[in-house]
Amino acid sequence: MSSGSGITPRAKDFSAWYNEVIMKAELADYSPVRGCMVIRPNGYAIWELMQRALDDMFKATGHRNAYFPLFIPQSFLSKEAEHVEGFAPEVAVVTHAGGKELEEPLVVRPTSETIIYAMYAKWIQSYRDLPLLINQWANVVRWELRTRLFLRTTEFLWQEGHTAHADEADAERETLLILGVYRRFAEEWMAMPVLTGRKTDSEKFAGALRTYAIEAMMQDNKALQAGTSHNLGQNFAKGFDVKYQTAAGGLEYVWNTSWGVSTRLVGGLIMTHGDDVGIICPPKLAPVQVVMVPIYKTDTEKAAVLEVCEKSAAAMRGIANIRVEIDMRENMKPGAKYYEHEARGVPLRLEVGPRDVGQGVVTAAKRTGGKMPIPLTGLVGEVQQILDQIQRELFEKAKQRREQVSRRNVTKEDFLAQMNGEGGFAYGGFCGSGKDEAEIKEQTKATIRVLPDEEFQTHPAPTTCMWCGAPSKTEAVWAKAY
Amino acid sequence: MSSGSGITPRAKDFSAWYNEVIMKAELADYSPVRGCMVIRPNGYAIWELMQRALDDMFKATGHRNAYFPLFIPQSFLSKEAEHVEGFAPEVAVVTHAGGKELEEPLVVRPTSETIIYAMYAKWIQSYRDLPLLINQWANVVRWELRTRLFLRTTEFLWQEGHTAHADEADAERETLLILGVYRRFAEEWMAMPVLTGRKTDSEKFAGALRTYAIEAMMQDNKALQAGTSHNLGQNFAKGFDVKYQTAAGGLEYVWNTSWGVSTRLVGGLIMTHGDDVGIICPPKLAPVQVVMVPIYKTDTEKAAVLEVCEKSAAAMRGIANIRVEIDMRENMKPGAKYYEHEARGVPLRLEVGPRDVGQGVVTAAKRTGGKMPIPLTGLVGEVQQILDQIQRELFEKAKQRREQVSRRNVTKEDFLAQMNGEGGFAYGGFCGSGKDEAEIKEQTKATIRVLPDEEFQTHPAPTTCMWCGAPSKTEAVWAKAY
Repeated sequence: MSSGSGITPRAKDFSAWYNEVIMKAELADYSPVRGCMVIRPNGYAIWELMQRALDDMFKATGHRNAYFPLFIPQSFLSKEAEHVEGFAPEVAVVTHAGGKELEEPLVVRPTSETIIYAMYAKWIQSYRDLPLLINQWANVVRWELRTRLFLRTTEFLWQEGHTAHADEADAERETLLILGVYRRFAEEWMAMPVLTGRKTDSEKFAGALRTYAIEAMMQDNKALQAGTSHNLGQNFAKGFDVKYQTAAGGLEYVWNTSWGVSTRLVGGLIMTHGDDVGIICPPKLAPVQVVMVPIYKTDTEKAAVLEVCEKSAAAMRGIANIRVEIDMRENMKPGAKYYEHEARGVPLRLEVGPRDVGQGVVTAAKRTGGKMPIPLTGLVGEVQQILDQIQRELFEKAKQRREQVSRRNVTKEDFLAQMNGEGGFAYGGFCGSGKDEAEIKEQTKATIRVLPDEEFQTHPAPTTCMWCGAPSKTEAVWAKAY
Repeated sequence: MSSGSGITPRAKDFSAWYNEVIMKAELADYSPVRGCMVIRPNGYAIWELMQRALDDMFKATGHRNAYFPLFIPQSFLSKEAEHVEGFAPEVAVVTHAGGKELEEPLVVRPTSETIIYAMYAKWIQSYRDLPLLINQWANVVRWELRTRLFLRTTEFLWQEGHTAHADEADAERETLLILGVYRRFAEEWMAMPVLTGRKTDSEKFAGALRTYAIEAMMQDNKALQAGTSHNLGQNFAKGFDVKYQTAAGGLEYVWNTSWGVSTRLVGGLIMTHGDDVGIICPPKLAPVQVVMVPIYKTDTEKAAVLEVCEKSAAAMRGIANIRVEIDMRENMKPGAKYYEHEARGVPLRLEVGPRDVGQGVVTAAKRTGGKMPIPLTGLVGEVQQILDQIQRELFEKAKQRREQVSRRNVTKEDFLAQMNGEGGFAYGGFCGSGKDEAEIKEQTKATIRVLPDEEFQTHPAPTTCMWCGAPSKTEAVWAKAY
């Protein structure tokens, strides 16, 4: 890897590093509107790839997209008691429009449960209309006090799924199906390992019966909630009178779920894989997977080298759908181009010089380290293999890193030392008391990220609460978090 | 075509017909928020196909997507004089957020020139940064008094391109390039013929130097402005101080363009092709291109028929990427299914019954009329051909219809008769006077849709203004419009 990138090293100041790699890679920029960011083309291209992959997964599981209004009558928020308490303090309110004061102020959606379930009440009559499985790609607004590019912004882009089911079991099945989709996307596409599990009551969505989440571990050993899936029970159905006629002829409230991931995932990708040179895109989400840099001095060399670039690029695109760019900029030295593509996280660079070409090879440089010649014969297959390998390596590396900062069966002392020290995930017994949970948060800033799913649980299970020593009801995973 | 659809016929009340086909096809619904609509899955699926096709065309011409904030500081609007005059009366304003009154109110974007050019001022330094070619897919809000599903809603979805160029010629080239993209999309994808041309000063975008548009003719003989492309000159560059260093070392303002199409196009598609049974989707934009309806009485028949459906559907999907649905709903008669798919505009229905299957055929029913048997051998190719044929037929039919209601070289008398009568496009000489234009609008409600491009002009050109008899400066095309 190149050095002298001018970026603050992660070890020195992770937060400064984060902002600087975003600026350097031109992923996003600050806007003149408080707390709102601009997603620049390099950043938006990553989000588009994320959207495409997730959208395909949603559709493959029977969901369809729709679009609901940006504005929500203020009175709607109040129809679910916990919901209004959770969101009212952070909404933006339109009071004037078309030159007049509105009779009822409109809230800019912080999430769309209320407006969507108001429509579902109209659309759902019978059990034949269920399940209703709809997703929306949209912008939402939450008036946050402290904002950070991608991670927490006043306006952000997301998808929000909203479904209606005949009974609790089907709603729960859907909630967990989507949790699985999120996990698969995080791990297989973002190369970002996640824990899955349930949230405690104090961390659940305002208005949900149960919230499940995927939680990832960033390089500064803070956790990132990367996606949530809520079983809303009948809370909103009761608030908005969403009833259906059962097969037997009775009238029942539906069961709802909602679930979402946002542009925050781009922040997660950066903080999972980036290094002191810049970001690293997992190949599956890299807008440019392979950049070819031609190297030449004379016009004859240039012609020979460019011919190889163009033929190879056409083969990579045509045969394997690889996203290739040839960097033909004049008046820019190859080394300067290398820096730029490294900062932008292009997973694989192919240096194409006259000597290499004469020998029927190009030089491949992996963004994750390592240079090697590749024969032009069989180039496409070899490049595809290297990209697959980088994708796997990034996941394995991130997983190892997470495991290195995960402590199991922590005692209170271990826990305090860990949270005052390097951070990471602490697994321990938990008595289930909200009072303990609040005390821990107050003293250490750590919160319960999840009550882990079976696969992530410790065996044998801890028997006492790591904090108060009372019998443990469930294992919990704590961390400081974004 | 089936009858007894329960929909008001177009000839009786076009406007009622329009709303009813939308409701029947479940494309959209009214929302509890004044002037805002819900785009339901059937309607959103059409929009998604439109987006995909347009997005591919934008990317193929060098544009990249980005995302800019929903909110615009109120003071920004005022930086371009015509712009604020055009948009200020119809904005929605956020005055409170996070429980407090804002120091400066925020406008919900009615269009994004101001916030985008504020960012361009930061990003553009030198001629090397030009042209800057960015597009955004977003929601915008304009507080409209009279709204209609898809055609004019308070909030709508659109794309807005915003580009910066070194000189006027390059900006003009871009403006016309996009006009061509819009025309190609309208004609090749929507099967909707359009006129192209320039808008008069009174009809141009607030803040533009020149506006170009594509204009289509609906079945009620009213025109629909379906897309606009603006050469903004240096108006916004001056307002937001967007300057670049030229190759020679000087400092110049950039030249901007902006261009957009919106969910209004879905309305255009409906009003161009729909009939008294429902909507008709051009195959290229049909979420379901082929619906297979199995017909059976016994379990044995069912098994045989479903096997044929599944094999054929797999072949159509796998070989030709055809979007096929098998309608396997029980307890619903084939006839009821036919009505539903016709209302939703599915271009081709395949009826798969035991007798047909025994003879190695299925019965194809075109949404545009006509039934015929198709052999199962070679089914995919045959279906593809029929879909292509429907696409062409729809375009030709729409074009003939438009020509039938287009009058050239109109006199004032012709014009008045046409605008008081059947409507359509009236081509005539125009003296260029804004006063005449206003008078015509007042007396007939007709407006100049375009000063037509060469291809659409009358030869020889009219010599006198059809309204006042003064020498004609340019030919104009009038119509009553949405």
